[in-house]
Amino acid sequence: MNVAIIGASGYTGLELIKLLITHPKFNISYIANSTGDINVQELHPCLKDVLNIEVSKANAKDISKVADIAFLALPHKTSMSFAKELLDLDVKVVDLSADYRLELDTYEKHYCEHEDKDHIKDSVYGLPEYYKNDIKDAKLIANPGCYPTASLLALLPFIEYIDTKAPIFIDAKSGVSGAGKNPSETTHFGQINENCHSYNPFKHRHMPEIQEKVRLLKNEEVSINFVPHLIPVTRGMLVSVYATLKNDINVSEILESTYKDSEFVRIREKPVDIKSTAGTNFCDIFAARNTNALFITSSIDNLLRGASSQAVVNANLLCGFDEGEGIPKIAYVP
Amino acid sequence: MNVAIIGASGYTGLELIKLLITHPKFNISYIANSTGDINVQELHPCLKDVLNIEVSKANAKDISKVADIAFLALPHKTSMSFAKELLDLDVKVVDLSADYRLELDTYEKHYCEHEDKDHIKDSVYGLPEYYKNDIKDAKLIANPGCYPTASLLALLPFIEYIDTKAPIFIDAKSGVSGAGKNPSETTHFGQINENCHSYNPFKHRHMPEIQEKVRLLKNEEVSINFVPHLIPVTRGMLVSVYATLKNDINVSEILESTYKDSEFVRIREKPVDIKSTAGTNFCDIFAARNTNALFITSSIDNLLRGASSQAVVNANLLCGFDEGEGIPKIAYVP
Amino acid sequence: MNVAIIGASGYTGLELIKLLITHPKFNISYIANSTGDINVQELHPCLKDVLNIEVSKANAKDISKVADIAFLALPHKTSMSFAKELLDLDVKVVDLSADYRLELDTYEKHYCEHEDKDHIKDSVYGLPEYYKNDIKDAKLIANPGCYPTASLLALLPFIEYIDTKAPIFIDAKSGVSGAGKNPSETTHFGQINENCHSYNPFKHRHMPEIQEKVRLLKNEEVSINFVPHLIPVTRGMLVSVYATLKNDINVSEILESTYKDSEFVRIREKPVDIKSTAGTNFCDIFAARNTNALFITSSIDNLLRGASSQAVVNANLLCGFDEGEGIPKIAYVP
Amino acid sequence: MNVAIIGASGYTGLELIKLLITHPKFNISYIANSTGDINVQELHPCLKDVLNIEVSKANAKDISKVADIAFLALPHKTSMSFAKELLDLDVKVVDLSADYRLELDTYEKHYCEHEDKDHIKDSVYGLPEYYKNDIKDAKLIANPGCYPTASLLALLPFIEYIDTKAPIFIDAKSGVSGAGKNPSETTHFGQINENCHSYNPFKHRHMPEIQEKVRLLKNEEVSINFVPHLIPVTRGMLVSVYATLKNDINVSEILESTYKDSEFVRIREKPVDIKSTAGTNFCDIFAARNTNALFITSSIDNLLRGASSQAVVNANLLCGFDEGEGIPKIAYVP
Repeated sequence: MNVAIIGASGYTGLELIKLLITHPKFNISYIANSTGDINVQELHPCLKDVLNIEVSKANAKDISKVADIAFLALPHKTSMSFAKELLDLDVKVVDLSADYRLELDTYEKHYCEHEDKDHIKDSVYGLPEYYKNDIKDAKLIANPGCYPTASLLALLPFIEYIDTKAPIFIDAKSGVSGAGKNPSETTHFGQINENCHSYNPFKHRHMPEIQEKVRLLKNEEVSINFVPHLIPVTRGMLVSVYATLKNDINVSEILESTYKDSEFVRIREKPVDIKSTAGTNFCDIFAARNTNALFITSSIDNLLRGASSQAVVNANLLCGFDEGEGIPKIAYVP
Repeated sequence: MNVAIIGASGYTGLELIKLLITHPKFNISYIANSTGDINVQELHPCLKDVLNIEVSKANAKDISKVADIAFLALPHKTSMSFAKELLDLDVKVVDLSADYRLELDTYEKHYCEHEDKDHIKDSVYGLPEYYKNDIKDAKLIANPGCYPTASLLALLPFIEYIDTKAPIFIDAKSGVSGAGKNPSETTHFGQINENCHSYNPFKHRHMPEIQEKVRLLKNEEVSINFVPHLIPVTRGMLVSVYATLKNDINVSEILESTYKDSEFVRIREKPVDIKSTAGTNFCDIFAARNTNALFITSSIDNLLRGASSQAVVNANLLCGFDEGEGIPKIAYVP
Repeated sequence: MNVAIIGASGYTGLELIKLLITHPKFNISYIANSTGDINVQELHPCLKDVLNIEVSKANAKDISKVADIAFLALPHKTSMSFAKELLDLDVKVVDLSADYRLELDTYEKHYCEHEDKDHIKDSVYGLPEYYKNDIKDAKLIANPGCYPTASLLALLPFIEYIDTKAPIFIDAKSGVSGAGKNPSETTHFGQINENCHSYNPFKHRHMPEIQEKVRLLKNEEVSINFVPHLIPVTRGMLVSVYATLKNDINVSEILESTYKDSEFVRIREKPVDIKSTAGTNFCDIFAARNTNALFITSSIDNLLRGASSQAVVNANLLCGFDEGEGIPKIAYVP
Repeated sequence: MNVAIIGASGYTGLELIKLLITHPKFNISYIANSTGDINVQELHPCLKDVLNIEVSKANAKDISKVADIAFLALPHKTSMSFAKELLDLDVKVVDLSADYRLELDTYEKHYCEHEDKDHIKDSVYGLPEYYKNDIKDAKLIANPGCYPTASLLALLPFIEYIDTKAPIFIDAKSGVSGAGKNPSETTHFGQINENCHSYNPFKHRHMPEIQEKVRLLKNEEVSINFVPHLIPVTRGMLVSVYATLKNDINVSEILESTYKDSEFVRIREKPVDIKSTAGTNFCDIFAARNTNALFITSSIDNLLRGASSQAVVNANLLCGFDEGEGIPKIAYVP
């Protein structure tokens, strides 16, 4: 199965390349970035002697001739216009941007006017634990954001036990690769190292994404109050969810039973850490209770489970392959 | 005014030495650790050509002859027996351990049997913003823990506006120096670097300390649910408090009016970070609101405001000096 | 082909496990550490849902029944007595310790009395680029140290052009995982983070190892002056070699021609970095010249090319497999 | 004594501010950056409640009215035209750029055409240990670069014992703050963290600076071969010098006798580290010998001894104050 990677210059583009090089069933037939005219080994020197392929300037028609599926690792806005072209040329799309993750109204409220209103309504939200059947039949998959992936996998099992009138708080800690590869004041080593701070508290665009998915999946209007933090870590994400319980529950049992058939969710008996999931598609989850106070903590690799490996899982499902085909399970530890 | 530092080997002991070397009114007349018989320059090579003094094996009688105040940077349990001796010899004590921070019952429930029941009831909790007058007249000051310092300064101004029937969540991120200088699996670079995890969720001993102080200061029984995290940072601490509001409030105004006369609390207009307080005695605070959801974030240097510089502030007040005498305000940034 | 891993608790033991789980031709039939009686998932929580096997207390007879090759990731001294037992039971051994790396005299001068004088003389030094044919026929392979691997691969191509009467300097920078998993003052986060220092300058045991191999391979007595440094990095190693040239040379051409057939050496046109090799078995090399001053810099993953993946390459060769079978080439970047 | 700081936005500008706030004899009367019209607390949020002064757009005439000395923390080229104006207005200048550090020929060979040929010949190189008397009478001080400061202090004591026909190698490891505050690919956290690499080997502009000063001070033409490396550290620098000795020497004695009267050089008995000097003006030095191979390692805070605190030492000397007036000696450790 031939696949194209569009947006190869960034971190998630590189992770897609790395995953697909060794994937037993996908073959990279096309790689593009915004300029083209460069070999992938120059773009990513770590690929020297590993992959030898020219990087093109992205062109939908060319892609439609050589690939069945395209992974789009593009900024939002850029992504929807390109996805539209590809879909009209019958190329299936796994979109890693925000462009198809939300219902139209929510999207336009938090991002901008949508330019592909036809396809947004048919897109499937690519969180395999909750949308597996829809993914199998989809043409367009909206790959979830990293924060919503870790937050939803932690929170969803407990919605029915939570007092949804009380605010739910999500305190997320993200590695800096989540801010992308472009240099900025935010990603300067001197600013990040030996530091930690929150940003956009209660205002991050992933907040409505989490809220909407809880409503769609659980039919509950919840008040998600999301506060992301940057920690001096390159890759990985830790999410801490705080909620008020309606009644006594056994938190471990609920987690175990929810995810007993999930290949890529591991329930832990101790608080999870980033290192055990970095390099893998696993989401590790641990929960604890103090009378009516609930704490759930989940860990993912923000670039893999929060982006590229989840995208490949979605592509696997889309093609009828095993969910875990070519998906990493062995962490980088130490 | 001659002062003694007992427990000079650890991180807080070193910070005390550093602060007192340059203090305009205190003179270090005695330094001790558990073994003695070493020069302070061997114990802390960074002090070469800076301070030349022998480190003794701690002895209360010797201290009483050469010092008016003793700073105890000792483990809990060890601290109370030594403090008792000193107090009986009329040496004033600023204790950095947990031994005199709590009411007797709370202490014995969470630590162990108390061996100095006489003095614990007269000790003053050394959080200057809330206990300044008591500190001035005290003989024994219990210096607050780092987590309670950052948590209480953030939380206390809002208690009357919070729905105290709902759980209050505190998500704290601490630098590794908080775990002390002794090597352990927890402090191994390979375990901390590129990692983040919570520990003892809802079970840390600083949880009852916070809860008790809210009750004593605000006459409110609150449900504090405390989850500490380790981040790959050497020094500094960031605390995020999440609570449910009873009504509409202007969070900035409340903070500004609470701390308008506080030399060492700075109210920020953007989320606080660790780097702006590391190296200082400042506590920076920022708050935000989303309908009835409240977020307060505070930042301190865990070894200074969370331990040694707060101890020196307390000693300043005890001696009738200015609160800020010899207390650092200029951060290490970058 | 069934293989055993002895010494599974440490970093190199874990890396061996990780490599062999996915190896297409080796099967892990036995894992041991010094205590046994634990599941590998408890020993290394990152392996949850990945590998399920009991860890035994190491026993040579048991190994001889279930494995054809044993990887020993043991401390020196411990290793030689165990290797001896295994070899006498006809189990082939890839030893990651120092015990068989040196000629007997050199070993006893720098380590201790040798307890397996029979086998040390038949051991083969497992640096595949220089000993490939010997490795293929070996029963006992002494896997090189991480510093010698990176240093020799950089230095050997230039020996004939270097003024060997002048000192050769090697300035090596190692990630902290090289110091092992046991907590110590040296590996404490507070000591390593924001720090850098050399240790044992001119006295490290890898210095005679490098010197001996240059003599054996190039028939030149050189003066190797080795200074290792610790940098605040978990995994990876950068080596900078400085030497005096006898005459004008084209450094790139020499490197290119030496390693043109080497699958796991990459010659770079810019100074190498750690990130491009971390996670792989590659050794990246770059060289520059300033009249008669030569600079060669090489980068490896200290736990892989410097230990575990090189060990598996050696096992591949020993078994007549392709050198690169199951050996990682895709770096962890970012 | 009123002083001006020009170039207040960068790291060295901030360090100058921090030093001069607490300096007992200097008073900051003017702060400028390239835009002006901002309060220093907005420019550097860590200064909130510490210093309240408007930042101007730099203007030489204004400065001449309010300050006797100006510290220029400007990029090279910008610096010389501004210094010229100030000198012509009788303001003394401590220039932290490269513009006056070299002889005219050397400068124009490695940088660009010089625009202030009048003053360059009268400038004094601000390395106090070697130019103290000249500094006292100077009007224009060229503050040395960070690499030359650490390299020269390590190397100079040994020049007469070194075989100057053999190449001298300097392997320097710098914290990232040396690359400045502007975001770039080089300073991106994802590029620096868990990484290490050399850059511009044998081509860095500090190489001729070191070479020239050895010639001027010791009357020896030496072959300096300089290779800088970036390490994942914010502040601090470690320099390792490798040279060939002509004869037997006692390295410690030579260091001790050279620097016995130097307040800010500490000779160490063990390899130096960055943490013991970070936050101070100290240069720590250690040396070792292996027959004719010499290793000298020095450590400084690149922003202080390598820039701002050395600039203030120079200003102290210029004004007839004590060298150590207001100069930090207490490291940030841990």
